[in-house]
Amino acid sequence: MTTKPASETLDAVKSFALRFSRLLDERITFDGQTPQTLADSIRYSLLAPGKRLRPFLVYQCGALCGADDDVCFAPAAAIEMIHAFSLIHDDLPAMDDDDLRRGRPTNHKVYGEAVAILAGDALVTLAFETLATKTLDRAHIAPLVADLARATGGEGMIGGQTLDIEGQRSETDERSALTLESVRRIHSTKTGSLFECACKMGGIVAGADAETLERLGAFGLNLGLAFQIADDLLDVTATSDDLGKKSGKDAESGKQTYPASVGIDRSRGLAQEAVAGAIEAIRGVSGDTAGLEAMAEFAIRRDR
Amino acid sequence: MTTKPASETLDAVKSFALRFSRLLDERITFDGQTPQTLADSIRYSLLAPGKRLRPFLVYQCGALCGADDDVCFAPAAAIEMIHAFSLIHDDLPAMDDDDLRRGRPTNHKVYGEAVAILAGDALVTLAFETLATKTLDRAHIAPLVADLARATGGEGMIGGQTLDIEGQRSETDERSALTLESVRRIHSTKTGSLFECACKMGGIVAGADAETLERLGAFGLNLGLAFQIADDLLDVTATSDDLGKKSGKDAESGKQTYPASVGIDRSRGLAQEAVAGAIEAIRGVSGDTAGLEAMAEFAIRRDR
Repeated sequence: MTTKPASETLDAVKSFALRFSRLLDERITFDGQTPQTLADSIRYSLLAPGKRLRPFLVYQCGALCGADDDVCFAPAAAIEMIHAFSLIHDDLPAMDDDDLRRGRPTNHKVYGEAVAILAGDALVTLAFETLATKTLDRAHIAPLVADLARATGGEGMIGGQTLDIEGQRSETDERSALTLESVRRIHSTKTGSLFECACKMGGIVAGADAETLERLGAFGLNLGLAFQIADDLLDVTATSDDLGKKSGKDAESGKQTYPASVGIDRSRGLAQEAVAGAIEAIRGVSGDTAGLEAMAEFAIRRDR
Repeated sequence: MTTKPASETLDAVKSFALRFSRLLDERITFDGQTPQTLADSIRYSLLAPGKRLRPFLVYQCGALCGADDDVCFAPAAAIEMIHAFSLIHDDLPAMDDDDLRRGRPTNHKVYGEAVAILAGDALVTLAFETLATKTLDRAHIAPLVADLARATGGEGMIGGQTLDIEGQRSETDERSALTLESVRRIHSTKTGSLFECACKMGGIVAGADAETLERLGAFGLNLGLAFQIADDLLDVTATSDDLGKKSGKDAESGKQTYPASVGIDRSRGLAQEAVAGAIEAIRGVSGDTAGLEAMAEFAIRRDR
């Protein structure tokens, strides 16, 4: 197993987040063609403080397969736009109805529901516009677009959010009958799909072969699952002070989580299994995988 | 000027709409990977009866420039998905709050707001996934994706909807001060952008040169403007029976229209100017442009 301490991964993620946020701030600007309110609303969410985990994975997997940083920016920015869109729409009154995200008012609280919906929509199109850039090899654009679209759409993240919303709104009796399989499906699609896609996109811009892309995808999917189970566990076990947000919120809102489905101990075991699966997948890729292995370990050793 | 009668154009549009709707129905299907409710909600709106004007333009402009029907399907389906997405989101309570569209309950009335928002989102990603298909020449995919994204996003349709919503919500006094320029900007982006993009996409899959693409785009933009001014005029001058929907609805909801801004007579003149602009642009493209010229004439000779 890796010997890198969690603090080293945390430092790497944090310093990347700062650098990448600066790049986004510089490069994702709008001229007068986009209405000002819409541009403000898009930038409010896209540039909100965040861990930038998906972009980090694009760059890390890209570097592992020999891609320059230059070609990683477009897919990294695109997947962060998709992530930002999903947060705006998930927070809407018709969805999770959240007023705060990471301590700041949610997009619709600041700009109103109509503009928040439109800003989310515009972020999706901006993501694909960003991928269709001249800085990328033309042969890579079609697979990038196809992968990001699939990971985001009805078979991926949007499908997962649909299942999550439907599950939360079903009767309590039905809810308690939710199986591990259904929770796994929600987490795999809602969180796993974009992690899987981020890792594969790093490989695509590096021109990696099909087997490598498959391994990168498996790494990302398992990593996403591990992160999500760890989040579920933190919501149950951490205090609100630790989290920087209210703990116990998932149970309150009837969210379908691993602890609610199989209990805390078994959830810990499944998170550990996902980490092992991620590490096994990435070890099959040639090159220095220590950083990504450490990232997998880090996923379940966080305190927030 | 063209000698084709309007009835011929109407017949061509109608028979295309039937054929294209059948193709969509056959080809846009979902396996178990997409949650059933989401798949149903997407198909409910995508397969709703419609004129299929944007797909018609893709095929017509494609044929003019020598493209086979085979390569027109993907861009035609993609732009119809974007159109369907826009109708679902525009009808939401936070936007235009419409319960009926062409006599059928709107998507959120049938599936609820959350699923309607998600179905709209999924249609956007499906549009780009559809463009990244192996049936297209790889060299055409990046320009198709870039064009569709720009036409849909903050500089295009979504930007137009933002301006429209903002205008409707401003105070009555400000509203009456709305200039022709602001109404033109809303119509050009909200309707014109997708018409422009449809025509250009037909040229792109035919491998048309830059000058031809520019002419096709100018044709589409003017055509979209003509259609939209004609719609505005029909809302004022037609009876509800003619329209198959309530007339006078625009004025009631404070929509920014040409007649409200410059009156009926000047609006008619501007619609005629847009038609002339469209015809001038398309005549510069070599080949038989009579059908497209007739389509431009038809735009302002409709009764619904």
